[in-house]
Amino acid sequence: MDAMQARIRFILETDRLKTVQRQTYITDVSRRENSAEHSWHLALMAILFNDMANTPDLDLLKVVKMLLIHDIVEIDAGDTFAYDAKAHEDKAEREQAAAQRLFGLLPEAQREEMLALWREFEAQETPEARFALALDRFHPMLLNLHSQGTAWRKHGITRRQALERNRMIADGSEALWKAAQQIVAEATEKGYLAE
Amino acid sequence: MDAMQARIRFILETDRLKTVQRQTYITDVSRRENSAEHSWHLALMAILFNDMANTPDLDLLKVVKMLLIHDIVEIDAGDTFAYDAKAHEDKAEREQAAAQRLFGLLPEAQREEMLALWREFEAQETPEARFALALDRFHPMLLNLHSQGTAWRKHGITRRQALERNRMIADGSEALWKAAQQIVAEATEKGYLAE
Repeated sequence: MDAMQARIRFILETDRLKTVQRQTYITDVSRRENSAEHSWHLALMAILFNDMANTPDLDLLKVVKMLLIHDIVEIDAGDTFAYDAKAHEDKAEREQAAAQRLFGLLPEAQREEMLALWREFEAQETPEARFALALDRFHPMLLNLHSQGTAWRKHGITRRQALERNRMIADGSEALWKAAQQIVAEATEKGYLAE
Repeated sequence: MDAMQARIRFILETDRLKTVQRQTYITDVSRRENSAEHSWHLALMAILFNDMANTPDLDLLKVVKMLLIHDIVEIDAGDTFAYDAKAHEDKAEREQAAAQRLFGLLPEAQREEMLALWREFEAQETPEARFALALDRFHPMLLNLHSQGTAWRKHGITRRQALERNRMIADGSEALWKAAQQIVAEATEKGYLAE
């Protein structure tokens, strides 16, 4: 299979990310968000909010690449709800196998680049990875507040859980963490998050 | 309204791109593709296919930014089917107004950057804009071939129309245009495109 065909095969395989449902609802509350459109929205946020990263002058293209590919493993491993402790137990193992299979469809140079980006995001050791995760955690909070807290209420999430679970936003962006705390306060006031 | 709030307002408004339906079906043929997930898939392709652009060393971050924002105007103006000549008559006018309103939600510096990117894509005068459009045209052909030609058959698209309508792919990428012609040949053979 030539390099073009291998890449086309990867694009066709990743089409399935459009059918992976997240817990979060889109803002018109008509349905749950899927992981492909979620990834688009995060990449768009990276472009518009990059001056709010704790580290100035971070590599924006790398942040965007990470966000575009960070959820692709869910095609095999499924989306793991942020507040589901049990599903998180074997999450790393399931996602590692998924990354090998899915990025393994690509020609070698690209497979290595994509795997390296995915591992960098997971390892959370670079400013780019931390800022990307901050966006990944901030975005569903924003959508939850503006979809009548539907996902939070459905799962009985508390104010304390929302703060604990998303505290690492501060590692990527103090500005987004401040905004996230305001979201939690407003959502608690509206009864979307339990006290 | 401070700069953070204006940007958050824009992100919430662009959430509606997830409800703009395109004519193309996703590959499991369960439903039509929406413009948000389409934009994600194009940005992913830009990263993986950038060595196939006619111009080497193009500004990949700019291509990705263009692709992430190029369809946002559809929130107000709707998606215009590539083969609908009538809808194309006032497309430019509708989209111009949409760009002003939607990107106008952003703080000035970002509004100007986004408007400039959108105009650059529309004007098709730079290598980045031409490569971005090549991907935007190639992607639905690929999806159509792998969704039993559902959108093509529904609208009775012919082989000649598919070639004429997408010929500008060659201006951005000769390699993708070659692959697109193979798609047309295969789709015609399978009866997805009319002779």
